[in-house]
Amino acid sequence: VALAARERLGAHVTGWDPDEHALRVALERGVLDAAAASPAEAVAGADLVVVAAPVAALPAVLEEALAAAGPDAIVTDVGSTKAAVVAAIGDPRFIGGHPLAGAEVAGVEHARADLFAGATWYLTPREDTEGLRFERLHRAVAGLGAVPTAIRPEVHDRLMAAFSHLPHVVANALVEQACDALGDEAIPVTGPSFRDMTRVAGANPPLWASIYGANREALLDALDGLLAHLRDARAVLAAGERVEAWQAGAGVRRRALLDVGLTGGPLQQVRVVVPNRPGVIADLAVTLSRAGINIHDMSLSPSPDFRSGEVALWVAEDHAGRARELVEEVAR
Amino acid sequence: VALAARERLGAHVTGWDPDEHALRVALERGVLDAAAASPAEAVAGADLVVVAAPVAALPAVLEEALAAAGPDAIVTDVGSTKAAVVAAIGDPRFIGGHPLAGAEVAGVEHARADLFAGATWYLTPREDTEGLRFERLHRAVAGLGAVPTAIRPEVHDRLMAAFSHLPHVVANALVEQACDALGDEAIPVTGPSFRDMTRVAGANPPLWASIYGANREALLDALDGLLAHLRDARAVLAAGERVEAWQAGAGVRRRALLDVGLTGGPLQQVRVVVPNRPGVIADLAVTLSRAGINIHDMSLSPSPDFRSGEVALWVAEDHAGRARELVEEVAR
Repeated sequence: VALAARERLGAHVTGWDPDEHALRVALERGVLDAAAASPAEAVAGADLVVVAAPVAALPAVLEEALAAAGPDAIVTDVGSTKAAVVAAIGDPRFIGGHPLAGAEVAGVEHARADLFAGATWYLTPREDTEGLRFERLHRAVAGLGAVPTAIRPEVHDRLMAAFSHLPHVVANALVEQACDALGDEAIPVTGPSFRDMTRVAGANPPLWASIYGANREALLDALDGLLAHLRDARAVLAAGERVEAWQAGAGVRRRALLDVGLTGGPLQQVRVVVPNRPGVIADLAVTLSRAGINIHDMSLSPSPDFRSGEVALWVAEDHAGRARELVEEVAR
Repeated sequence: VALAARERLGAHVTGWDPDEHALRVALERGVLDAAAASPAEAVAGADLVVVAAPVAALPAVLEEALAAAGPDAIVTDVGSTKAAVVAAIGDPRFIGGHPLAGAEVAGVEHARADLFAGATWYLTPREDTEGLRFERLHRAVAGLGAVPTAIRPEVHDRLMAAFSHLPHVVANALVEQACDALGDEAIPVTGPSFRDMTRVAGANPPLWASIYGANREALLDALDGLLAHLRDARAVLAAGERVEAWQAGAGVRRRALLDVGLTGGPLQQVRVVVPNRPGVIADLAVTLSRAGINIHDMSLSPSPDFRSGEVALWVAEDHAGRARELVEEVAR
């Protein structure tokens, strides 16, 4: 994030890390403009504070950052689950975040300014998130190359459970079942579907143990849902009836899932005047995201008396009509 | 198979197909030397008969082929499950087969002589399979570019269930669970693990309905095993204990699974004299496969009185010592 902010946003970036060696390397490699001696020193005077820490440690580190941050600062995080941290932090300067980007290799030596290019970057504005603050964060994230996507924290965690955490659990279980089936045979079996489906089995154990733990409730719900679907599948396969229809249905549903959120042509501007009530921008962003409409860019112009403001949103041409309707509903 | 046999083995190939158009195209494109008017005509005088038909139709078509085939012919099939067809056909001239090769596109227009290059081709010799017949089939399959791998029919079906059929069922269930989680949101979620794990969801419904049906018992066993592993995973995740060890274990097991059957260096010849008893070559081939040793080539030289024979096997250098021990045990 620091490297991308320097290279793509032209930002002045001050960093702090508990690992002094990492901090020194970051400075040497031009990932940072300056290295701070403490979190408070790094945060002082910053427009935007990005906290990266293990999910369990986030609340404490965020509170420390918020205590040192100015009244106009935005404080965000990059944790992989959102409901718990959003519930833990009451400060309206905090807006949760989660970029869906990463690499096999960790550490500042492997930092790349293009890591976020085209990546979904979830943002979890709150009811009381000020519109201008959300707009600034939205613009910063888009400037890093990512696609900011507003989402409710609990929906975020449910979707992460179904689309990321559950697949990891299932990959592990498939490997265990395959070991049982192989027994003491040493026969090569190299189906491409098995390789694809177990590629993530056993990935980074400390990291994934912490991710599963942070999203435990949503993951257990997803796992229960999957168990129910597998029991239904067992009944269909055992009866030998409607098997072809069941198989075809899964293909239709997968295509529908992957079509969600496809961009729909060149960008078009949608403008609307919104009342200056708390949460209106958050409502707007979440409403459009739920409808599958990406806000590629946004701009807020408050009226002189701050009683209302004009919002300009850039969305895909094909979505502009629907976006205008939804935006006007929210603004009412 | 026909095209590869012509191009790679220099074989004279006569074909028959219930679809007259396909048969004509095969002839025009040089996939066949001759088109027969009936299965019996195609089979007459053949050294090797390869039957490709839907799994449920295989026993009847194989019986028809065996009735027309000569006493020295080898009749094999390319069906994706093996226990039922091997149990159905009592003729020792039949040796089941299953090449793990295919393409997204079907039909003779898409035939490629290199389709089998490097692919595992399972063979299911019987107790009463004659050694010389098995050797001829082994050599033909290797000549098509594939790696012949001897296996017991029920082990074949169990492994196919775990490594291929179950992953397809799980992909469908993951898609269904993801649809539930998405609900009426239209939020893009594009995790690479989800894409990888659901790539095969809904694949070719008529084909896969027939594959599931043909391997129903083994598939239901595998599914029950997976359900048990998922329930265990649920308990680990809910307790939040030993999660990291569980995750790490899956990684270790996956690497062990994918290491199975890796070639171990340049080939070396292993020679052994075996008694001329029924099934000795089948025993030998299955024993080596179970130990993870590929027979890259084999050659049988019967003694003049046919009371015994010398077998030469080519295996990877690293496996030669172990192969010699196993072969001598079987030959005793």
